[in-house]
Amino acid sequence: MDQISTAAKPHDELAMLLSEEMRAVDTLIRARMVSKNAPRIPEVTAHLIEAGGKRLRPLLTLASASLCGYDGPFHVHLAATVEFIHTATLLHDDVVDESAQRRGRPTANLMWDNKSSVLVGDYLFSRAFQLMVETGSFRVLDILANASATIAEGEVLQLTAAQDLRTDQEIYLQVVRGKTAALFAAATEVGGVIAKAPPAHINALREYGDALGISFQIVDDLLDYGGSSANLGKNTGDDFRERKLTLPLIKAIAQADETERKFWSRVIEDGHQQDGDLEQAMELMRHHGALEATRDDAVFWAERAKSAISQLPETRLRNLMIDLADYVVSRVS
Amino acid sequence: MDQISTAAKPHDELAMLLSEEMRAVDTLIRARMVSKNAPRIPEVTAHLIEAGGKRLRPLLTLASASLCGYDGPFHVHLAATVEFIHTATLLHDDVVDESAQRRGRPTANLMWDNKSSVLVGDYLFSRAFQLMVETGSFRVLDILANASATIAEGEVLQLTAAQDLRTDQEIYLQVVRGKTAALFAAATEVGGVIAKAPPAHINALREYGDALGISFQIVDDLLDYGGSSANLGKNTGDDFRERKLTLPLIKAIAQADETERKFWSRVIEDGHQQDGDLEQAMELMRHHGALEATRDDAVFWAERAKSAISQLPETRLRNLMIDLADYVVSRVS
Repeated sequence: MDQISTAAKPHDELAMLLSEEMRAVDTLIRARMVSKNAPRIPEVTAHLIEAGGKRLRPLLTLASASLCGYDGPFHVHLAATVEFIHTATLLHDDVVDESAQRRGRPTANLMWDNKSSVLVGDYLFSRAFQLMVETGSFRVLDILANASATIAEGEVLQLTAAQDLRTDQEIYLQVVRGKTAALFAAATEVGGVIAKAPPAHINALREYGDALGISFQIVDDLLDYGGSSANLGKNTGDDFRERKLTLPLIKAIAQADETERKFWSRVIEDGHQQDGDLEQAMELMRHHGALEATRDDAVFWAERAKSAISQLPETRLRNLMIDLADYVVSRVS
Repeated sequence: MDQISTAAKPHDELAMLLSEEMRAVDTLIRARMVSKNAPRIPEVTAHLIEAGGKRLRPLLTLASASLCGYDGPFHVHLAATVEFIHTATLLHDDVVDESAQRRGRPTANLMWDNKSSVLVGDYLFSRAFQLMVETGSFRVLDILANASATIAEGEVLQLTAAQDLRTDQEIYLQVVRGKTAALFAAATEVGGVIAKAPPAHINALREYGDALGISFQIVDDLLDYGGSSANLGKNTGDDFRERKLTLPLIKAIAQADETERKFWSRVIEDGHQQDGDLEQAMELMRHHGALEATRDDAVFWAERAKSAISQLPETRLRNLMIDLADYVVSRVS
């Protein structure tokens, strides 16, 4: 443990500190994604679960529980639960967004088909449900049931808000809470609940997860336009092409004059995009300071996350969770 | 109540006997499918939930609970739960099967789009989850979590078994348990559990639901070929065209000679269907007695359902549940 470099990323440090628990989570995930009757299930999920990603949500659950003095075994179940829910929403998202890439590999949707993505997603939801029932905590079930409803509502709201120029910052925040922050908040809150932490600490953990999730998603949406420095790479502008009203766009549209509104109406509402439109959109965002303002919002939420978690007693884990909030916004600094 | 005609269908009689509870279920369903943030949700679900269908599953839950002497309030929650789960699976089924009609109306899939069907289905699952948490019974949660996993596994298994001539009666039974019987069995079992019925009665209720569900699905699959009398109407042969290996087909294929196997291989595995193939398939099923044998299986399961429920004390409700099993197979007599 003494060997951890101070330059390591906070989630990598968290993963090292919690490596034993994370191995238990991996083992549980592998054991539970098996289906004797339907071998296609592990085939589809392996491709997502092995790819791994950062395993950020299970890490947050383990860290929250450990931070509150819990040493097992149900934080492992809950960490696997949130990863299953996350993977299931990715699978369902693949179907609906017709996105071609996820975590750098072809989506399950393309490798298999829409049917498998929907049904295997449902299977993972039901497996998550079984895992949380095993914890024997009604409060945990209540939190995760409410989070599931918020996630689904947020996804539907995103659908109806897309391509609609009336989408404002308030609607954006609701969508972000649904698609990202609800599961972050549940992941940290259930960690505190399973540890039987005092109410103030549980609230602080929930607030941390919520604010971190919002900050995380705002940063993601900003990076789609190359970050606040607006460096367009080959993967930028996807949201623009899909006519998604994310925060940078919403902020620019809010300040649009007559001519600019006609432009936004053509490219977003009507979807008549041509060469140079993305550059024009970027120019308008720069002109109105929309990218910097979006970055400021991300920093605001990261600060809120830090302030919430600071209410808990100082430990190495707590400090890494503070560092994590800083790290999230450092991607756009 | 004295006015009920003895010629009424058993589920209509059950609905009349339990009309007060059924109204409470309807009220609860309407209250819980609302979404303040995402108005599209009730728009999509109304189309399925108002169309109504027979509301067979919630009726079974209410009947099972009442039969065991329970008078509320959580059988209403559980009845709404099973209807939400059922509606959610229909929505996800619409996406995956590209079916054009459901309950005589255009599917949500066509009226809206794949995205809405997937996400609104997810929303209903989460609403079902919230409702069952409210019952405060871990045993109920455990039963419904396991049923959800069996449903999803069965749907995936159906996917991989489709168009595969090796699909046998054992695999068919697993698929049927997943797509139909698991929710029927959970619907009746949780009725007994919430009523704190003795273990033998709860087991009998579960067995009844399981066997009734299997019988129900076999009849459905037989009706797709016009029933045991094989009267082809305009809606028959859908499963054949979709190359689904249901029981009548499986029984005919099991007895196929060399020439017949080539036929099945062409129309089911390769999907090269032409005019006259459905008639040829019907002829082979008739020749091998596959339709009558399928009907016999449906009757076998209906008898098993009756024998299970007969273990409970005789009441009007119990006798209607026996009648219901007879009614299910009367559709193909």
